Amino acid sequence: MSANASQLERLTFFSDAVFAIAITLLIIEVHVPHLETRDDQAYWQALQGLQPSFMGFALSFLVIGALWVAHHRVFGMLVDYSAAVMWPNMLLLMTVAFMPFATALMSSNPMARVPELVYAGTLLVAGSLQRMVFAAALRPPLVRTDIAPEHVVATRWRSLGLPTAALLSLIGAWFAPGWNNLLLLTIPLFVRLFYAIGLRRTQRLQLAAEN
Amino acid sequence: MSANASQLERLTFFSDAVFAIAITLLIIEVHVPHLETRDDQAYWQALQGLQPSFMGFALSFLVIGALWVAHHRVFGMLVDYSAAVMWPNMLLLMTVAFMPFATALMSSNPMARVPELVYAGTLLVAGSLQRMVFAAALRPPLVRTDIAPEHVVATRWRSLGLPTAALLSLIGAWFAPGWNNLLLLTIPLFVRLFYAIGLRRTQRLQLAAEN
Amino acid sequence: MSANASQLERLTFFSDAVFAIAITLLIIEVHVPHLETRDDQAYWQALQGLQPSFMGFALSFLVIGALWVAHHRVFGMLVDYSAAVMWPNMLLLMTVAFMPFATALMSSNPMARVPELVYAGTLLVAGSLQRMVFAAALRPPLVRTDIAPEHVVATRWRSLGLPTAALLSLIGAWFAPGWNNLLLLTIPLFVRLFYAIGLRRTQRLQLAAEN
Amino acid sequence: MSANASQLERLTFFSDAVFAIAITLLIIEVHVPHLETRDDQAYWQALQGLQPSFMGFALSFLVIGALWVAHHRVFGMLVDYSAAVMWPNMLLLMTVAFMPFATALMSSNPMARVPELVYAGTLLVAGSLQRMVFAAALRPPLVRTDIAPEHVVATRWRSLGLPTAALLSLIGAWFAPGWNNLLLLTIPLFVRLFYAIGLRRTQRLQLAAEN
Repeated sequence: MSANASQLERLTFFSDAVFAIAITLLIIEVHVPHLETRDDQAYWQALQGLQPSFMGFALSFLVIGALWVAHHRVFGMLVDYSAAVMWPNMLLLMTVAFMPFATALMSSNPMARVPELVYAGTLLVAGSLQRMVFAAALRPPLVRTDIAPEHVVATRWRSLGLPTAALLSLIGAWFAPGWNNLLLLTIPLFVRLFYAIGLRRTQRLQLAAEN
Repeated sequence: MSANASQLERLTFFSDAVFAIAITLLIIEVHVPHLETRDDQAYWQALQGLQPSFMGFALSFLVIGALWVAHHRVFGMLVDYSAAVMWPNMLLLMTVAFMPFATALMSSNPMARVPELVYAGTLLVAGSLQRMVFAAALRPPLVRTDIAPEHVVATRWRSLGLPTAALLSLIGAWFAPGWNNLLLLTIPLFVRLFYAIGLRRTQRLQLAAEN
Repeated sequence: MSANASQLERLTFFSDAVFAIAITLLIIEVHVPHLETRDDQAYWQALQGLQPSFMGFALSFLVIGALWVAHHRVFGMLVDYSAAVMWPNMLLLMTVAFMPFATALMSSNPMARVPELVYAGTLLVAGSLQRMVFAAALRPPLVRTDIAPEHVVATRWRSLGLPTAALLSLIGAWFAPGWNNLLLLTIPLFVRLFYAIGLRRTQRLQLAAEN
Repeated sequence: MSANASQLERLTFFSDAVFAIAITLLIIEVHVPHLETRDDQAYWQALQGLQPSFMGFALSFLVIGALWVAHHRVFGMLVDYSAAVMWPNMLLLMTVAFMPFATALMSSNPMARVPELVYAGTLLVAGSLQRMVFAAALRPPLVRTDIAPEHVVATRWRSLGLPTAALLSLIGAWFAPGWNNLLLLTIPLFVRLFYAIGLRRTQRLQLAAEN
């Protein structure tokens, strides 16, 4: 294994570890109820009271999971990395590490505007930083030669999906705090849409170059 | 190392990290007693009061450990993975990350029905998701060629062991909350039983094909 | 990389992760004082009150560190592992994951007998399990061929050092709780002593075989 | 991969894991406010009250991040390591694991002298230990042969940057607690300065040797 590949692997590894820790730490912000009774009804009610925490846990797990899957996909396309990737990636990890706080703030204060703004804002920052990392990473000499150039361009485009959905959710948080999280369901749609746009663009450029 | 092998390795790594963090976080839900005395008897009593927490810690450590050992065994049989593995695996990890909560809920409220139902239900979900991941992963072109096909089939069968025992424990939680966890001791039995069934099935099919 | 080497690597990796998490979690049991004053004296006193916690943190960090260094040394001598290593190793990891609790119990109740017994007992269990893991791991076909057999035997012997010192500390905890931890300073001495004994033994056996 | 390279990789891995866990644990010391109102103003005030915690989180994330980036750079230059690296590295990791405590102590008691002294002191210890680790690691037979000797010397010199800035911050903490952290902004300057000094020194020596 070349020295560069080994350094890339270690950067990847460190990032993976931070993603894995942040995603698993989400659960320790869900406080365990301790009841002095054995009445079933009391327990069901206690669990129902935790519903915002469960939903926050699941939502953030899926969002951090999606961030990791994208990171995994993009870094798997690389043979090397430029120094310009290091610090944007570190700031992305900082935002990911902040997610357990943003999640708990939202879950502990359900349907309140400011916590929802903070949560959607954190996602917007994470998505924008990831977009920046991918743009710096996916440059010609750093990408594996067996990957089609239009796929590289389209992969860069698809990273606009999360920040777009997060921006919508941020705006929505002002008008309908809590419900705005439903807008995050559009993430897969936007990702596919931007991927298709990126693919079409490069194909049009290639056609133009051929004529 | 090929690009696919490297991507598989990173998926494996991320999964390992979540398993390792969840299994180690179990201990922080065991609350440390702080006594103002130096009387030995008071300490022994305090530790005895923690017995449900110690048992929950040990039980969950062994269950998550067993989930990891199975994951380790199956992913060690692969040379590549299909995209269909990614999200079921992510949901499996979410369930594993949820285990410290389910464990603490059960330990803080010993012998109560609802916490036991939640705990056994979490195991059932984890076992079913793992079964799904393994079924998607153990497909012909993705498996190492030096592994006997009947072993692959039997490995898929054995993953029915945990969800079966978890289902029994879930039913048992209704009638004898707390004691139902003893049913989890049948996990190794069911695993062996299903492995033997799987092995016999393929051998019968092979015999039929040869005749 | 062969399939066996890759599986060994993953087992090593999972163990490393649990060691790393347990060693880093030690700090979250040290509770941060929050004073309403800016008087220097009050802060120094608050920090002095945390002295048992600082000492527990440092002691456990060094002990888990030493367990990891030994694990690192022994697993670095292997080319493969037997199934007999898997579950003793998992129980060793369980004991390591238990260390933050044992440490906090001791630190929160300084100089009390029962917490000291629990702490020393945990070390004794960890040391004994590690001894078991190493004995199962360091067997002829599993060890790298470029390692001298007498070094293998001596490495197995040196793993008696930690359980011996832990046993002394356990006995000492009964008579002089708190001070017994000083006996753990003998760990490096016992490790060297047993290593020398192991080396001499094999040399005597080799001489006897040559004559 | 040679046995030495594999052992070096595992040491690197363990270090990475501790860095990643410590950096992600920083967030759990930021306590989530739980308000009974939906008044926006109350939330903004609660978040403003957390400002010292947010700043401590960001500062420590960047400092631990910088420590990791330097560790990553230096260990990427190695082909092997001497036993003399192991324990200074373990003590460095202990200091890194202590950072979440030092950060929370500073954040919970903003502008107080003793917590600022403890924080700057922790950085000074971490920087000095890292300097020690790098000096032991960057020795001729252990360094990759394709790296210019003057780059190795300059890399050793640059590791004086963090302890120098930390020392200034420690002195500053006595006179202007809180504001002294601004001195940490000089870290990149000192790192570059010492790197340049190291480079010039070796070049002068090389010139002298040639004449």
